[in-house]
Amino acid sequence: MNPVNAFNEYRQKMNDQILASNNKIIKRIFNLDTNAFTEGAVPARTKEMFGLACSMVLRCNDCVKYHLGKCYELGLSDEEINEVFALANLIGGTIVIPHLRRGTEYWENLKNNV
Amino acid sequence: MNPVNAFNEYRQKMNDQILASNNKIIKRIFNLDTNAFTEGAVPARTKEMFGLACSMVLRCNDCVKYHLGKCYELGLSDEEINEVFALANLIGGTIVIPHLRRGTEYWENLKNNV
Amino acid sequence: MNPVNAFNEYRQKMNDQILASNNKIIKRIFNLDTNAFTEGAVPARTKEMFGLACSMVLRCNDCVKYHLGKCYELGLSDEEINEVFALANLIGGTIVIPHLRRGTEYWENLKNNV
Amino acid sequence: MNPVNAFNEYRQKMNDQILASNNKIIKRIFNLDTNAFTEGAVPARTKEMFGLACSMVLRCNDCVKYHLGKCYELGLSDEEINEVFALANLIGGTIVIPHLRRGTEYWENLKNNV
Amino acid sequence: MNPVNAFNEYRQKMNDQILASNNKIIKRIFNLDTNAFTEGAVPARTKEMFGLACSMVLRCNDCVKYHLGKCYELGLSDEEINEVFALANLIGGTIVIPHLRRGTEYWENLKNNV
Amino acid sequence: MNPVNAFNEYRQKMNDQILASNNKIIKRIFNLDTNAFTEGAVPARTKEMFGLACSMVLRCNDCVKYHLGKCYELGLSDEEINEVFALANLIGGTIVIPHLRRGTEYWENLKNNV
Repeated sequence: MNPVNAFNEYRQKMNDQILASNNKIIKRIFNLDTNAFTEGAVPARTKEMFGLACSMVLRCNDCVKYHLGKCYELGLSDEEINEVFALANLIGGTIVIPHLRRGTEYWENLKNNV
Repeated sequence: MNPVNAFNEYRQKMNDQILASNNKIIKRIFNLDTNAFTEGAVPARTKEMFGLACSMVLRCNDCVKYHLGKCYELGLSDEEINEVFALANLIGGTIVIPHLRRGTEYWENLKNNV
Repeated sequence: MNPVNAFNEYRQKMNDQILASNNKIIKRIFNLDTNAFTEGAVPARTKEMFGLACSMVLRCNDCVKYHLGKCYELGLSDEEINEVFALANLIGGTIVIPHLRRGTEYWENLKNNV
Repeated sequence: MNPVNAFNEYRQKMNDQILASNNKIIKRIFNLDTNAFTEGAVPARTKEMFGLACSMVLRCNDCVKYHLGKCYELGLSDEEINEVFALANLIGGTIVIPHLRRGTEYWENLKNNV
Repeated sequence: MNPVNAFNEYRQKMNDQILASNNKIIKRIFNLDTNAFTEGAVPARTKEMFGLACSMVLRCNDCVKYHLGKCYELGLSDEEINEVFALANLIGGTIVIPHLRRGTEYWENLKNNV
Repeated sequence: MNPVNAFNEYRQKMNDQILASNNKIIKRIFNLDTNAFTEGAVPARTKEMFGLACSMVLRCNDCVKYHLGKCYELGLSDEEINEVFALANLIGGTIVIPHLRRGTEYWENLKNNV
């Protein structure tokens, strides 16, 4: 399976299992997560770039992949993605570089996932 | 090999190798780690839940697995584990969700590890 | 003003101001925060100890103060608090010690706040 | 002195002292910091919102203040700021709330700094 | 009181109070902390520089102050301190800059503390 | 392929791809990274030990591997590496232990990579 589909399938399978546990707090966190990234005073597109930048400085590969997937769906350009990557690596430091590598690889995967 | 045994074997093999290095400070840290989680004014069971919660907010998959293993041995229920997961995801934010996925999967592995 | 009242008043004043902004996501996060720490499969008392431990390893002085205040209200003993402090400093490392100092000071403030 | 001026003066004084040390690496980091936030494929305005979001999830009060100051200069609205605050508190969790309080207070300081 | 003495006195007062609590785990952590920074295969002087670098990237002002104090006692030069500062700001990113400001100020305090 | 070569090849391949994007900020960060670890008031050897210690407390496996590789090239002894590991685990806490396991394994890989 290609890396994008593998990521999305595992994510969906585990989300289903987590929500099946019926823990009210977790359900509400998942619900908030969906609502928070919708169009508002800040456009959804910009919010996904925030999500990407925050995921990078907090150094979470799965979160980087998820937001890259959303950025791809929303049509962000390579130049925009690279500027987000650059800012995140400047703010978060060289400790973020391994996530820049994985993020760059996954962005290519997304573009090749036809 | 099932994921629980694979985790435990790698952990044991590397711990043995680390302790063989005879670094006094590291030996004492390992020793403290064992002592700190024993029964006290706070029950061992509660301490393992702390270990799990702290591992989640600090986003360390191996630490989450280790404490889930101990929680399983000590007989914690699904409801208790889910409440710890919920609190950790609330305190630590949605950046913790990928660890919730891995933790949920490993908790299932523990229950199926017969 | 004593440090406990100063902390609580600033916290309340700013919470009021934040909620007055009418941002739906923030309101729901505050609401979840209240609900998550209520009695459940895990007792409220234990949850506050989790909150304290997580706040220490994440090194947030204001969060440590808040959860110490709740622990005090719920009647936790010095021994229990010290065991939470010890675990947090072991898990989080010596980088947590400055927060152990502030936490110890604030726990004394709470006991002297008559 | 009002809090905004106090923050800016301390920041400027220490930056001058740091740059006077003539450490080449530090000079270049400061230089990069200035360049990275200029207009590009991503607008400067959006970049400052990234800076704010990243500063919040990484829980750095001084960084939050700095980017709030830039956001204020660039004319961001209360609604935009609140949406950035909301996303950062969702991604970073309730551990970020103390920084939401300080950030909200400083945003008011900026608006009242006439 | 000058900032160096104020820092040291508060630190000593709280350490005494913490150790008086007689929590065995905490006592041993404090003890390890003293032992770990003594002369070994790595010189004590280098270890203090590690302590400083780690404190900066982990963004703990009190820890930065403590290790700067030790570095000052051990006779480190301005150039050495600036190179540690530079590396820490590169590895940890611009989010570390506020700690570079406080660290630079405190290093001056140490040199002027006659 | 052995783990050392696999790590180095992936790293090189992705670095080439990242630099090919021609983002000026990222190029300069990579350039700074090379310059910062050269001989200065602090020896290159000591700087690599800093890099290792910081990578451990910040819990980045790829960064730990990279700096272990450089430490190996520069001829650091097992005793020196173990003292860096010990300090990092003390400062960063037991949450760092999984990285101590991976680091110990990779150090063996480096020594066996003939």
